[in-house]
Amino acid sequence: MSAVGTIQATAPQPEAARRIDPDPGALVEAIRAGDVRACARLITGIERGTPGLEPVLRELYRRGGRSRVVGVTGPPGAGKSTLIDRMIGGWRARGATVAVLAIDPSSPFTGGAVLGDRLRMGSHGGDRGVFIRSMASRGQLGGLARAAGDALTVLDAMPWDVVIVETVGVGQNETDIMRHASVVVLLQTPMGGDDVQASKAGITEIGDIFVVNKSDHPDAARTARHLQEMIALSHRLHLERPWVPPVVKTRATEGEGVGELIDRIGECFQALEGGSSFARERRLARVRHRVGEILREQFEKRVSDDGSRWLDALLDPILRRENDPHTVADQLFARMKH
Amino acid sequence: MSAVGTIQATAPQPEAARRIDPDPGALVEAIRAGDVRACARLITGIERGTPGLEPVLRELYRRGGRSRVVGVTGPPGAGKSTLIDRMIGGWRARGATVAVLAIDPSSPFTGGAVLGDRLRMGSHGGDRGVFIRSMASRGQLGGLARAAGDALTVLDAMPWDVVIVETVGVGQNETDIMRHASVVVLLQTPMGGDDVQASKAGITEIGDIFVVNKSDHPDAARTARHLQEMIALSHRLHLERPWVPPVVKTRATEGEGVGELIDRIGECFQALEGGSSFARERRLARVRHRVGEILREQFEKRVSDDGSRWLDALLDPILRRENDPHTVADQLFARMKH
Repeated sequence: MSAVGTIQATAPQPEAARRIDPDPGALVEAIRAGDVRACARLITGIERGTPGLEPVLRELYRRGGRSRVVGVTGPPGAGKSTLIDRMIGGWRARGATVAVLAIDPSSPFTGGAVLGDRLRMGSHGGDRGVFIRSMASRGQLGGLARAAGDALTVLDAMPWDVVIVETVGVGQNETDIMRHASVVVLLQTPMGGDDVQASKAGITEIGDIFVVNKSDHPDAARTARHLQEMIALSHRLHLERPWVPPVVKTRATEGEGVGELIDRIGECFQALEGGSSFARERRLARVRHRVGEILREQFEKRVSDDGSRWLDALLDPILRRENDPHTVADQLFARMKH
Repeated sequence: MSAVGTIQATAPQPEAARRIDPDPGALVEAIRAGDVRACARLITGIERGTPGLEPVLRELYRRGGRSRVVGVTGPPGAGKSTLIDRMIGGWRARGATVAVLAIDPSSPFTGGAVLGDRLRMGSHGGDRGVFIRSMASRGQLGGLARAAGDALTVLDAMPWDVVIVETVGVGQNETDIMRHASVVVLLQTPMGGDDVQASKAGITEIGDIFVVNKSDHPDAARTARHLQEMIALSHRLHLERPWVPPVVKTRATEGEGVGELIDRIGECFQALEGGSSFARERRLARVRHRVGEILREQFEKRVSDDGSRWLDALLDPILRRENDPHTVADQLFARMKH
């Protein structure tokens, strides 16, 4: 594919680099203290691929981890924005502060679909306990899910009680992004008979809590029943799981069901994020994914010095068909063990 | 995220495993001889994540590499299917055989969008020099781009002269899939003034050849001009590239411009896939991506034996916030060097 080797030459933007605080320690402290302007600048740097942010991200990761990171995804038109607006209101009423990271995985050649952040603030404009930020690919190849992980590291190091990460459900991407969340809410729209049947069983692997929005729709009850059947089936395959995903019916435009949804999210955190070995395995799987994601990006990078010539020498026999990608990946994996 | 740790327990399907030829050598020979039924079964196995296919894929990779792998992508409604149908006809008229791998990155909860393979055969039904196969995520988390790479390894080991890999352009996914192709054709629809301005500069990094389809549309000329300007700008940033992407106008429904497109693809292969150091760097970037993709999947896998406990022990300090993902990824990358 074109220019995979040279994309790094254009992606980092010098003015963005200059706008990042030159003192990592001061930036970390500002983020930790809840400085939203510092946060916004740092996320812009992550989005643009500004080099040199790793020391800040390392430190923020080690000092973070107190927020509850909730993923919200679902197909276009399911009412995600309205529901999230109501969820923010629900948490605010309970005294919790909320940040939202809205990820737009849309193609660089079809343009963005996420509403402007200021518009998205909606009823929460002027509330300092709410922060909304969207993030798009800006035409870079690769790395949006990794960048989303870095942005969540930033938000999670701030004093937000709840951090929502949102994507529109249009493919593999949103599942990769949802892996950064501790608890995933999967939103569904009421579906007619054929569509219900066509919805794939895989969705029960993605969500911890299912929401059928537009609960006043004639197909809502049937859709909820179908989801419950699929969840029950999936649970019989995975009896070791200490949590059976509930199906919550909401009518986000009226705020109906939102309180129940917030209660279920709290219960899910209790069941899945405690000290059990199941909870530990879940967290470990998330970390495995995150490290694998960063490692993969290392492979993409063309370094200008000779820092990866050793790797090219290892990959050269693949070009000559004397070796193959699976064998080399196995060899590299084995080397990591030592 | 839910069940990342246990998804492997459900994904492999025993009946699929049984349907794969138990003798890897015989299967490799059948594929090499152009047995389309063996090919279809093997791709189904790849799609389902059937275990034990690696020995076959390793051997096929080493013995393949003679096909020209062309990527075709673009937004929904741009006319990809019609154009590909015409391209197949063009290559067939020149005596070349053609296989098509159509990747459907649609969400597991919105259902597939790719037409049935038999329907897609269209005017080429009954032509043994044409093979069309679609591939979807089937609700598995992760791995669609990696699976597409494996399927291309299979097709590339067969006697097809041209292998087309097609995705609908809806996000990060299609760029990941396009990285498996040697030459990428990016299809655009004529756009109005605002849309043209909104199309992001990043697209010039993705395509080697641009096509404005529906060339009889009043906005076609303006869209082509805008693309040419963006390409010229990008070329000034990358003067080392021996190829300036052309913009080809087509009217796929009438077959107009398709011959010119096929000529341009041939020229692009000559310019970019020869023995120059630029060509070598491009191929190396593809292989880096491919190995990184497989390696990342190794990270995702939960192995039932103790094969990855050493990794979990290394990741454990991340859970305790005594270490962080970036540092551990750097450490693992450094270990690979030795």
